[in-house]
Amino acid sequence: MGQCLCHPEKDTPYLCMKDNVYLCDECLHCRNPEIYCKYRTSCPIWFMEKRGFKDSEEVTGSEAHVSFLPDGQSVAVPVGTNLLEAARQADVHLNASCNGRGACGKCKLIVERGTVNTQTTTLLTEREKAANYVLACQSTVTEDITVRIPPEAVARKLKVAGMGEEVTSKLLGRVAEIDPMVVEVPLELAVPSLDDPVSDLDRLYRGLRKAKVETHRMSVGLKVMRELAAAMRDENWMVTASILRRRHIDELIEVAPGKGKTPSLGVAIDVGTTTIVVYLVDMHDGRVVAATSGHNRQASCGDDVINRIVCAEKNGVRKLSRMVLATINDLIEEAAAAADVERDRIKNVAISGNTTMVHLLLGIEPRYIRREPYLPTVSEFPIIKAGEVGLKTHPGAAVFVYPGPASYVGGDIVSGMIYSGQHREAPMTMFIDIGTNGEIVLGNNELLMTASCSAGPAFEGGGVRWGMRAEEGAIEKVNIDPKTRRARYETIGDLAPRGICGSGMIDLISEMLLTGVIDPRGRIALDQSHPCVVRQDDVLAYLVAPAAETAMGEDLLFSETDIHSIMLSKAAVYAGFTTLLEQAGMDFSAVDRVWISGGFGQYLNFDRAISIGLLPDIDRDKFTYLGNSSIGGAYMALLSGKMRAEARQVSNAMTYIDFSSNVRFMDEFTSAQFLPHTNITAFPSVKIGRAS
Amino acid sequence: MGQCLCHPEKDTPYLCMKDNVYLCDECLHCRNPEIYCKYRTSCPIWFMEKRGFKDSEEVTGSEAHVSFLPDGQSVAVPVGTNLLEAARQADVHLNASCNGRGACGKCKLIVERGTVNTQTTTLLTEREKAANYVLACQSTVTEDITVRIPPEAVARKLKVAGMGEEVTSKLLGRVAEIDPMVVEVPLELAVPSLDDPVSDLDRLYRGLRKAKVETHRMSVGLKVMRELAAAMRDENWMVTASILRRRHIDELIEVAPGKGKTPSLGVAIDVGTTTIVVYLVDMHDGRVVAATSGHNRQASCGDDVINRIVCAEKNGVRKLSRMVLATINDLIEEAAAAADVERDRIKNVAISGNTTMVHLLLGIEPRYIRREPYLPTVSEFPIIKAGEVGLKTHPGAAVFVYPGPASYVGGDIVSGMIYSGQHREAPMTMFIDIGTNGEIVLGNNELLMTASCSAGPAFEGGGVRWGMRAEEGAIEKVNIDPKTRRARYETIGDLAPRGICGSGMIDLISEMLLTGVIDPRGRIALDQSHPCVVRQDDVLAYLVAPAAETAMGEDLLFSETDIHSIMLSKAAVYAGFTTLLEQAGMDFSAVDRVWISGGFGQYLNFDRAISIGLLPDIDRDKFTYLGNSSIGGAYMALLSGKMRAEARQVSNAMTYIDFSSNVRFMDEFTSAQFLPHTNITAFPSVKIGRAS
Repeated sequence: MGQCLCHPEKDTPYLCMKDNVYLCDECLHCRNPEIYCKYRTSCPIWFMEKRGFKDSEEVTGSEAHVSFLPDGQSVAVPVGTNLLEAARQADVHLNASCNGRGACGKCKLIVERGTVNTQTTTLLTEREKAANYVLACQSTVTEDITVRIPPEAVARKLKVAGMGEEVTSKLLGRVAEIDPMVVEVPLELAVPSLDDPVSDLDRLYRGLRKAKVETHRMSVGLKVMRELAAAMRDENWMVTASILRRRHIDELIEVAPGKGKTPSLGVAIDVGTTTIVVYLVDMHDGRVVAATSGHNRQASCGDDVINRIVCAEKNGVRKLSRMVLATINDLIEEAAAAADVERDRIKNVAISGNTTMVHLLLGIEPRYIRREPYLPTVSEFPIIKAGEVGLKTHPGAAVFVYPGPASYVGGDIVSGMIYSGQHREAPMTMFIDIGTNGEIVLGNNELLMTASCSAGPAFEGGGVRWGMRAEEGAIEKVNIDPKTRRARYETIGDLAPRGICGSGMIDLISEMLLTGVIDPRGRIALDQSHPCVVRQDDVLAYLVAPAAETAMGEDLLFSETDIHSIMLSKAAVYAGFTTLLEQAGMDFSAVDRVWISGGFGQYLNFDRAISIGLLPDIDRDKFTYLGNSSIGGAYMALLSGKMRAEARQVSNAMTYIDFSSNVRFMDEFTSAQFLPHTNITAFPSVKIGRAS
Repeated sequence: MGQCLCHPEKDTPYLCMKDNVYLCDECLHCRNPEIYCKYRTSCPIWFMEKRGFKDSEEVTGSEAHVSFLPDGQSVAVPVGTNLLEAARQADVHLNASCNGRGACGKCKLIVERGTVNTQTTTLLTEREKAANYVLACQSTVTEDITVRIPPEAVARKLKVAGMGEEVTSKLLGRVAEIDPMVVEVPLELAVPSLDDPVSDLDRLYRGLRKAKVETHRMSVGLKVMRELAAAMRDENWMVTASILRRRHIDELIEVAPGKGKTPSLGVAIDVGTTTIVVYLVDMHDGRVVAATSGHNRQASCGDDVINRIVCAEKNGVRKLSRMVLATINDLIEEAAAAADVERDRIKNVAISGNTTMVHLLLGIEPRYIRREPYLPTVSEFPIIKAGEVGLKTHPGAAVFVYPGPASYVGGDIVSGMIYSGQHREAPMTMFIDIGTNGEIVLGNNELLMTASCSAGPAFEGGGVRWGMRAEEGAIEKVNIDPKTRRARYETIGDLAPRGICGSGMIDLISEMLLTGVIDPRGRIALDQSHPCVVRQDDVLAYLVAPAAETAMGEDLLFSETDIHSIMLSKAAVYAGFTTLLEQAGMDFSAVDRVWISGGFGQYLNFDRAISIGLLPDIDRDKFTYLGNSSIGGAYMALLSGKMRAEARQVSNAMTYIDFSSNVRFMDEFTSAQFLPHTNITAFPSVKIGRAS
C-alpha cells in the first residue's frame, strides 16, 4: 500500500511497475488528461494492467534505507518505492511541480551511495547524468542509498527567501498602515453555563463585540458553522476568528482553536502574460518573506494575449485557467517552502494582471476582448474567495483582483499607478509599462489618459532567437569595441550566457548603431567578411558571443530579423507616446517625468534606449526606471485598504484612447521604424555611426 | 452505449447484465455506498465483470417498442434496456427516489401487453405481483410491450397538486405583500458599440440601475461572472437577473438569457422529527401549486431528537444530514413533478424545524444540545445558498432558516408564532405544539415565555403499537357503544384501517375512560372475558378493529402499554401548562386563548382532549386547533421579508424556562399521570365511567 500520487490522502494498493508510483482507483480510471500520464487516459484498467500494473504485494517484502543529505533525514521504505515518495515520507521537500509525472525535471537528487532503478529522461544534461543526478520521481529504491539534494536546489531555496529580503528593503514603508482584508482576532470566551446558555455562534459574536469588532453586519458560511462547536471547545474557549472585511458585509471565514499562535500571511501576485511573480508577505509587519517568479505555463498557447484568447476559444477557458493556476500554485508552494510556512496560513491575496490574464485566471469568458467593440466581461471584481478561484492558500482567503479600465489596459497598469503614485501628484508624468505589450498612461492628479500600443513581447524575449527574461545567464549589458566591432558583455549572475534580456538588447542595438555595425534601417552594415558577421539561413546576423563562451555551446547571434522585431516594438512604444500626447494637446516639452516599468533587467540605460528611439530625446533627469511596478502595486493593495479603494478610483478615472483604428498612430508607427527615427531632429543628442 | 444511471449526462458502454443498467466509469469504481448497489462499492472492475458486466454491443442489436399508458407515450429502445431508462427516454416521469437501485419500490408499472425480464423483489405485494406489477428499475425490455402507470400513482400525483389548492385556500392572503429573498428582474440592455465599450457586468449593472435596482452594494460570484458573457448575448442583450437581497448586501445569483419567461417558484419546508412537509409556491401570487409530505428518513436512527443526536455522534452528522436531505429532495421532486415545473426554477426556500433537525439538516454539530448546559451551535442563521445545503433547487436559491431561541424550543415554534400571530395581539394566549415533542409558549404582544415539556412522540404514533401519522387509513374518530363496549371508528379516506392517529387515540382513550373500559389509572377495567379484551404477551389490550376489517388482516389492538405512553405524553403537556403559568405568576383563569398546533389529524375534539387531561377544563370557546402551524409560518416567511424580520425579533424576545431540572414540573408531571388528573377538581366537567 502507498499514497496515491494525485490524492496523497488515499492509500492504494496499485503500484505502476513501469513508473513506480502509486495511483488510487480514481486516478487509474480518470479521464482527465492532466493526471499522471497520457496513455492511461483512454484505457480501462485491464489494459493498464497489461502495461505493467501489479499488486504491490508482489514487489514489497524487503526494506531499504534512504538517507537525504545535506540535512541527514532518513527513512525505511519497501524496495520498489518511488524515490519522490520516499522523500515525502522522510519529510524532505523536493520541488516537483508536475506532481511526479516526470515532466518538470525539478526533483533532482544526486545519488552518493548505492544505486537506484531510474528511467531515462531528457530532462537531465549529460553533465548531470555523469554526476549521478537522477529525477526522484523517475527512480525507485532497490537498496540502501544516500542521496543529496543538489546544492543549486538548496541555493534556489535560499535565494527565494533572500529575494524576499531584497524586495522588503525596496517596499517596506510604502504602505502607511497595514489593513488586511482578512484580520485575525484572538478571543478568550466566557465558558458557558446553565445561566449563560447562548449558542456557540452568539457566544463568539459576544466575544467579538467585546474585542470591539462589529458583528451586526457579519455573515458566516456553513463550513465555519459546521466546524464551530469543535473549534471553540478544543482549547477551552480560546479561539482565533478570521474575519473578511468587505465594504458592506463582513464574513467569518475561520474559527481556529487557540489564541493567535499562527501568524497570518498574504501573497501578492503579478500575473504577467509571460512571467508570474509571487511575493509571500508577513501581514503583521509587511516583510516579504520569500519572492519568486516563473514562466506562465500558458506560454505553450502562444506569446500574446490574442493567442491565449484564441486558445481558450478552442480548448476551453478552464484549460487556460488551470495552466496559470498551476504556475501560481507552484510558486506559492515554492515561496512557502523557502519561508518554511504552511500555505493554509495565507489568508490574503492581491492579484494584478492584464484584462485577459485575469479573465483566464478566474475562468471568465475572454472571447469578446478580441472582437469589436473589445469588451471585457468584468472590469471591476468583487473580493473573491481563494477556494473558488482554485488558489492553494487557505480556501477562505480573500482575493483582491485589481480592476482594469479597458480590454487592453488592465489591472496591472492600475497596479503600476498605485505603486508609482502618478495619480497623486501634480507633475505631468508619462508612465510606460513594457511587458508582453506596451501600455502608456499620461497624466497627473487631475488627468489620466491611457492607451495600449501593441509593442509585442520582444523586450521580454519573445520573437527574438536568443531573447530571454532577465534571469541568471542573461546578457544584460553590452559594449562594442568601436575598432574591432567585437562585443563585450556582462551577464546576470556572471554565468556563461544563455541568452539576452531586454536591457541587453537595447544596449546591443544601440552599440551596433553607434559603431556602424548596423545602419538606421536595422540592416547589418559591416562587411560580410567581418568575423562577427554570420550568415545563417540567408539572414545576416551579428555574433554576440561565440559558442566557446556560451552555456549552450552554440554561437549567440543577433540577426536582422531579431533587430526588426525590436524595431517594431520600439516604434510602437514611441508612436504611442507621440499619439497620446497629441490627443492630450501636448508634446514632449509638457512632460515633467517619464517613468518606465517592465522586466528589462535590473538596469535600463536611458541614453541607449533614447539612441535607438525607444524613449524620447529629452532631459535624462526626467527618466526613472521603476522595475516591475505591477507586483509593487499588488503588494501595496495586499496590505492597505486605502490602496484597494484608490485602485477602484484610479481605474474609473482613466480615459482610454483606442489606437486600434487610429490613423495618427499608424502614421507615427511607420515613421518610428527607423533608428532612432525618420525625424532625426527629434533626436538631437543621438550621433550615429561614430566609429565609421 | 447508454446514459449512466447516476450521471445521465454521460454516455457509457458498460451495461450491467445483472441489473440491466448503464454505469459510467466513475460509478463502476465509486466507493460511495449511496451509488447504485452495495456489492460494487468495494470490488475492482474485473470482479464486477465476473458478476455480469459485458460490453453493450453484445446485447444490443434488435429494438423493442415500449408504450406507456394512460397517456400513450412510446419509445423504441434496444432489447435489454432497463424499463426505468426507457421511461426516461419516453419523457415519462416515474417516481424513483432511490435513483433506480431497487430500494424505494416507487417506480411501479403494470405490464399490460408482452413480458419483461424482471428481478424478484420484496417491495411488491403478492396482490401486486398477481396483477402484473413490476418495478421499472428492476426490469428490462425483451420485446414490444405496453405498460401502465398504476392508477394510484396517477392519483397520488393529482393529490399532491390538489393538496396545493387546498392549502392555498387556507393560506392565501395571510401575507400582505410578497417580497421574496430572490427577485427576478427582466432587462433589455443597450447593445454595445465602440462608443459604449463598458464591460458586460457594468452594462448589466447600468441596466439594473435603470430598472431602479440599487447596485452599489451588489456582490457577484465567480459562477455568474463565468456564465455572464454567453447569457447576455444569447438572446440579443435581453436577460433576466436574479438578485438575492440580504440585509447588508445583495447578490447576483443568476443571469439568464431572455426576458422573464420563467415564473419563479419557492418552497416552504417544515422539517419535523417524524414528518417533513413541503409546499411548492408560485412566488408571484403566493399560490401553493403542490403540497406533499413524507416520513423523515432519519427515523431509522430513532424516534426523538436525543436518539438522532446520539446517532450523529456515532455515525457522523453527514449521514443524518444526507438522510433528511434525501427526504426533502424527494418531496421537492414529487411536488415539482405534480405541478409539472423544473426544480431549477425554485429560487427561494424557507425552512422551519426544531433546533436539532435544523442542525442535522445543515450538517452542524448537534452534540452539545443534549449535554448540559444544552447549547445549540447556532441559533440564528444567515441566509444560506441551497447548493451549499445540498437542496436540489436552483443552487443559488436563498434559504431562510427560522431562528430558534433555545436547544429545545426551536425555529418550528417561532414559525408557529409567525403563523398564529400570538406576539402581535393583546389576549393572553397559551400556544402548544404537540409534535414529536411538546413546546409551549405563554404570552402576548408584551411577553413571550416558552418551555419544552418532553411529551414524546406518542401523539404522532411513536411508541404506540398501531400508532401512525394522520394519513390515509388512519383511524381519526372513535366512538364506543356504552352498552356493547364495541368501538365504531372513522378513517381518513374511508379506507380499511392501517393504524390510529393522534386525534383517534384521544377519542379512543376518552371513550374508554367514559364508558368504563379503562379506569383512571389507564388499566383495562372490563372483564377479561369480554370479546373486546385481548391478552397478548401478558399485556391486556382493547380490540379497536378486528382482523377482518383492517388493511393488515390483523387485529388492531390498543394495549395498556399504549395507553401508558399516551398518559405520559398528556401528563407532560399538562404539567408544562401549569408549571409555565406558575412561573409567570398566573393560572388558567388568566388565559384568554389556547391554540393547539400539531399533527393530530384534521379534527381535534377538545372535549375529549380535556376528558383525558391533555387540555385544561376551561371554556371550550377559548380553544382553537391550528393544524400544522410550523409549515404555515414557513410559507409566510418564504413570501414576506417583514415576516422574516419578525421571526428574528420573536426568537430574541422569547424567555426560555428550562424544565429539565425544575422540581415543580416533576411534581406536576407525577400528578398528571392519571385520567384526567389526580386533582379531579380541576376537571369539573369530566364525568367518567358514565356507562358503569
